[in-house]
Amino acid sequence: MIKAGIIGGAGYTGLELIRLLLMHPEVEISVVTSRRYKGKNISDVNPHLFPFIELEYEDVDAKEIADRSDIVFLAVPHGSAMDYVPGLMARGARVIDLSADYRLKKEEYERIYKRPHKDKDKEERKAVYGLTELHPEVANADLVANPGCYPTGAILAVAPLVKEKEGGGMVKQVIFDAKSGISGAGVEPSETSHFPNLAENILPYQVTAHRHVAEMRMELHVNVSFTPHVIPSIRGILTTAHVFLNTKETKTHEEIGGIFKQFYDGKRFIRLKKVIPSLSSVRGTNFCDIGFEIEEKSNRIVVISAIDNLVKGGSGQAIQNMNVMFGLDEGEGLWFPGLVP
Amino acid sequence: MIKAGIIGGAGYTGLELIRLLLMHPEVEISVVTSRRYKGKNISDVNPHLFPFIELEYEDVDAKEIADRSDIVFLAVPHGSAMDYVPGLMARGARVIDLSADYRLKKEEYERIYKRPHKDKDKEERKAVYGLTELHPEVANADLVANPGCYPTGAILAVAPLVKEKEGGGMVKQVIFDAKSGISGAGVEPSETSHFPNLAENILPYQVTAHRHVAEMRMELHVNVSFTPHVIPSIRGILTTAHVFLNTKETKTHEEIGGIFKQFYDGKRFIRLKKVIPSLSSVRGTNFCDIGFEIEEKSNRIVVISAIDNLVKGGSGQAIQNMNVMFGLDEGEGLWFPGLVP
Amino acid sequence: MIKAGIIGGAGYTGLELIRLLLMHPEVEISVVTSRRYKGKNISDVNPHLFPFIELEYEDVDAKEIADRSDIVFLAVPHGSAMDYVPGLMARGARVIDLSADYRLKKEEYERIYKRPHKDKDKEERKAVYGLTELHPEVANADLVANPGCYPTGAILAVAPLVKEKEGGGMVKQVIFDAKSGISGAGVEPSETSHFPNLAENILPYQVTAHRHVAEMRMELHVNVSFTPHVIPSIRGILTTAHVFLNTKETKTHEEIGGIFKQFYDGKRFIRLKKVIPSLSSVRGTNFCDIGFEIEEKSNRIVVISAIDNLVKGGSGQAIQNMNVMFGLDEGEGLWFPGLVP
Amino acid sequence: MIKAGIIGGAGYTGLELIRLLLMHPEVEISVVTSRRYKGKNISDVNPHLFPFIELEYEDVDAKEIADRSDIVFLAVPHGSAMDYVPGLMARGARVIDLSADYRLKKEEYERIYKRPHKDKDKEERKAVYGLTELHPEVANADLVANPGCYPTGAILAVAPLVKEKEGGGMVKQVIFDAKSGISGAGVEPSETSHFPNLAENILPYQVTAHRHVAEMRMELHVNVSFTPHVIPSIRGILTTAHVFLNTKETKTHEEIGGIFKQFYDGKRFIRLKKVIPSLSSVRGTNFCDIGFEIEEKSNRIVVISAIDNLVKGGSGQAIQNMNVMFGLDEGEGLWFPGLVP
Repeated sequence: MIKAGIIGGAGYTGLELIRLLLMHPEVEISVVTSRRYKGKNISDVNPHLFPFIELEYEDVDAKEIADRSDIVFLAVPHGSAMDYVPGLMARGARVIDLSADYRLKKEEYERIYKRPHKDKDKEERKAVYGLTELHPEVANADLVANPGCYPTGAILAVAPLVKEKEGGGMVKQVIFDAKSGISGAGVEPSETSHFPNLAENILPYQVTAHRHVAEMRMELHVNVSFTPHVIPSIRGILTTAHVFLNTKETKTHEEIGGIFKQFYDGKRFIRLKKVIPSLSSVRGTNFCDIGFEIEEKSNRIVVISAIDNLVKGGSGQAIQNMNVMFGLDEGEGLWFPGLVP
Repeated sequence: MIKAGIIGGAGYTGLELIRLLLMHPEVEISVVTSRRYKGKNISDVNPHLFPFIELEYEDVDAKEIADRSDIVFLAVPHGSAMDYVPGLMARGARVIDLSADYRLKKEEYERIYKRPHKDKDKEERKAVYGLTELHPEVANADLVANPGCYPTGAILAVAPLVKEKEGGGMVKQVIFDAKSGISGAGVEPSETSHFPNLAENILPYQVTAHRHVAEMRMELHVNVSFTPHVIPSIRGILTTAHVFLNTKETKTHEEIGGIFKQFYDGKRFIRLKKVIPSLSSVRGTNFCDIGFEIEEKSNRIVVISAIDNLVKGGSGQAIQNMNVMFGLDEGEGLWFPGLVP
Repeated sequence: MIKAGIIGGAGYTGLELIRLLLMHPEVEISVVTSRRYKGKNISDVNPHLFPFIELEYEDVDAKEIADRSDIVFLAVPHGSAMDYVPGLMARGARVIDLSADYRLKKEEYERIYKRPHKDKDKEERKAVYGLTELHPEVANADLVANPGCYPTGAILAVAPLVKEKEGGGMVKQVIFDAKSGISGAGVEPSETSHFPNLAENILPYQVTAHRHVAEMRMELHVNVSFTPHVIPSIRGILTTAHVFLNTKETKTHEEIGGIFKQFYDGKRFIRLKKVIPSLSSVRGTNFCDIGFEIEEKSNRIVVISAIDNLVKGGSGQAIQNMNVMFGLDEGEGLWFPGLVP
Repeated sequence: MIKAGIIGGAGYTGLELIRLLLMHPEVEISVVTSRRYKGKNISDVNPHLFPFIELEYEDVDAKEIADRSDIVFLAVPHGSAMDYVPGLMARGARVIDLSADYRLKKEEYERIYKRPHKDKDKEERKAVYGLTELHPEVANADLVANPGCYPTGAILAVAPLVKEKEGGGMVKQVIFDAKSGISGAGVEPSETSHFPNLAENILPYQVTAHRHVAEMRMELHVNVSFTPHVIPSIRGILTTAHVFLNTKETKTHEEIGGIFKQFYDGKRFIRLKKVIPSLSSVRGTNFCDIGFEIEEKSNRIVVISAIDNLVKGGSGQAIQNMNVMFGLDEGEGLWFPGLVP
């Protein structure tokens, strides 16, 4: 059994790790930390986990967590993960960081997250960007930087087209217009998550300046714009990718479909759909559903991807990465259909 | 492996059976019928089930279904199940009927459902009412009448108090005020399920005359009233049971709690809560969460139960019954935490 | 023009007063207070009010407010209103208090709200309980205690039956099971109003001990129980009144309907429905829709009332009271249909 | 009083016309037609309109409607309006058609709506496209083609930038990504409007081929793409306009704001916001709220507009047009704040 520690187990990301790891046949949760709930039974604080977990929340240091774990998941805010990583790795734990701290190059990180990176060995650690389908080198990584929720849906939607380099690059420009459930904003009540503000509404935010665009650019190397919105739903991110091609020579649906099929051949969590996907099919799962339509007499293709922000967009993908790191079947503990209706 | 057939596999109840049985380690789905979708891949019609099931919907008769199955689930409308049961049982299949056709005594059924019962051997079949926690004789049944969704939540909420016969019966009267998600109304669009009619609303219906009250009376033998409402949610039934005791002598929270604990001792799908339960903790699960409060200077106790109408209130309880019928662990395939948030 | 002041104009109750008074042909808003937003334009803080109001929030004392107003609405929390009332009335302003401070007898108030009443002349002020349809003496009141949202829906639902004294009283007992939109919990984000907690859910709370039951008992003088729930909607209270009669002698629908018709004759904001009402028809309006069903072979009648909690359950009724106090048509500024869909 | 007839008064557009016209001080509703509900009281079919309207639905011909009306609103499906227009105009009625039948040039209409235009005098009627802010010639029109809901939100969002011709045209390309409440899909239940399909979801549809794009191109004369989505809300359209400029020379927020202010000077239903708008502020109103953000180091401006699809996107704008046609104040009957929360 793999011993898994979770740092930051009281937020939505941490709770989703617990929910999924409890069903994982090869994993035993060894330690879960929370400063706020230290000493409390996890299932008292989160009644849906009763009687599946008997642990208490703890508040212990990186060293002890590392000693008790084979793998440690960091489900703490940006800026806090880098406080733990050096200590965890020094004691031999492998680490999957769900924050942004190890996703970008140091300079890029500091520019975008507007804080110095405190881990002096940041670059030497060679963190692998854990978009599992695009980065098989996750298998040998000791430190995985788990992608942001928006970048997961966005990058997977267009990677096959962007990576298609025939004739010097097929894609000219991509506008990502993303719609997320409110759980992405976290467990703490706020103006945005206040029911009367969100119900019967949709809230655009950071419409030109969301930090996640940096990950998209890092992975896609193409002209990318990004605008996120919060919809009155709990889970899910639907990404509408307006893809403009370099050529006006129309591609057929079959040609474009072929590019996707070849690119994602053998990737079990990518489901290519004949119709436009929506959120309900992926609810609670690690799938990324992708569909597209080609605009007539135009160079635009609209690609739509649907993920569960807390699973494929967070904790599920982290576990998928863990599976790959430990030589398990990629789908172990994650291979089940969505909650429909 | 137990071979399970599903008659009526395109409605919410049938789909939930498929979703849950696909995760059941001891079951193989042998046949799924649907007249409407005959010949179509189940996962084409229901994309969330891709690639977990490779079967097509079929339209075959009871005889063939029985020959291919050890257990047959009937997920068809009231009045239709009784057309299948004789043929299925004649060929040796055990049957779990999720409709109302075998829940009540023949005369009661005919009076309430306003149709003749077509199975001439109805009473001889000795169908067991499949409220698993109250009817251990499910273990030896060949025909289980799976309870209605509302009766499941209602009966479980008050059975411990009603069955407490010390002093000639503790409970004088119960008013069940139930609130259900719209999935209970089925997969077909209707006025009630039309989003602009249900969102920002709550719809009382059949406020004095819902047929499910007959099951409650059959099981509880006490003065029962029942009023259902539809809330703007997909899943779940929250039942508010206003229980009036025969005595004004106030019981303590501990005394009442003790009655519940003793009654449900060893029943793993009943979770007794210190606080008032709500729907989110049971979403997608087979749990029934129960909590209560005693009104000061009054003979009223308010008991609240929360279930997922499609799981404990339908397909999950059917599988729980199957587990008991086949000598498996009661929780096989059903033992996982809810989807929170 | 009537000059109206609003104390506490940044909460939902205050904002609804502003929204409605802006459309009132006989009223001019003279002053709106808010400590938090002092000095800010009301329409900057609340963009939906632009460009209808040009006032700033102020923080001025009772004396000044009274001098600038003919009528003052108190939209402040319980316990705070009684700080203002003496000063306002001393300067000759008439007052409508939307808090609980003047609704109950002093002793009852202190017992239930667990605080001393600080207005030493509380009883001498002879506040009129402002359930407009039941208290025509509002016309001559200088101080109106506007009812709570739950009591409004509950009392109006059953008053005609309870007041029917033929044969010594018709009604034996009433159980009110109420379902409210979340706006009743106010403008401040909280655990309860956090979208992932409320969506796809329904939250019972204070199930045996909600303070509003005192108003119901004060007005109805009958055996009353009350349990409230929050539903995933913004506005509205649907009250399901389970009414048990003293007699088993069944009344006809026509007889009961006749009692309602006679009782509410000429009351324009009460709409008696042939069918069970729901929230959408009253959205944004001052109506109380009422319908009922008689249970066969039983002494139970289920009466359902639907109101908008912020209008008839709060600010709208306050304005209705103001209309009566100033000799205007009762419906002035309030006579418009609901927002459907 | 202006006598107004409504053809097609049982759908959401017709009902919204009724709701708004009932509050209009200069209008009397003269006739409302519905084949389905002929002979029924309008307020029996639509209880929220009781007791505001005493008319019955009728089924009468164009001639009679024209004789009884000064202005006739056509709230019938595309393809049906053109059956009425010739008869109505022949009898001297002025007409506002809320369908698509008179919005586009004949050839364009036939190509896009895939049916022949049956009105042989279609072009001679010189219908004015009723986007009130852009087409003052509405004042003298006898036939107004009221814009589609999506085009209203989209065109208003970018018209000031697109019409800015300094330097040969400022805007290179616009991608409209629109999110609509489900009421736009009409009063009839469907798969899309089925609550379990839409709640906790967002549904992209006709992602490259929605017919409304033709109106946008007709009005804007610029490179336009359009993709609509349905969100789990009843009312509202939020349009995210990704505007790409011809120049990389960054404009300041003040410069762009100045262009908007000048363009919409005196247009009372356009509210230019300092922050990104959302749907709640416009709920139930005829306002179009507009805000924008300029992306740094980019030629992209994101403009967001918010309207109520049934009011400014339909019936409200039709009444605004009627006001202009009859020389009334543009805001007559429409000048009230939105329903918040």
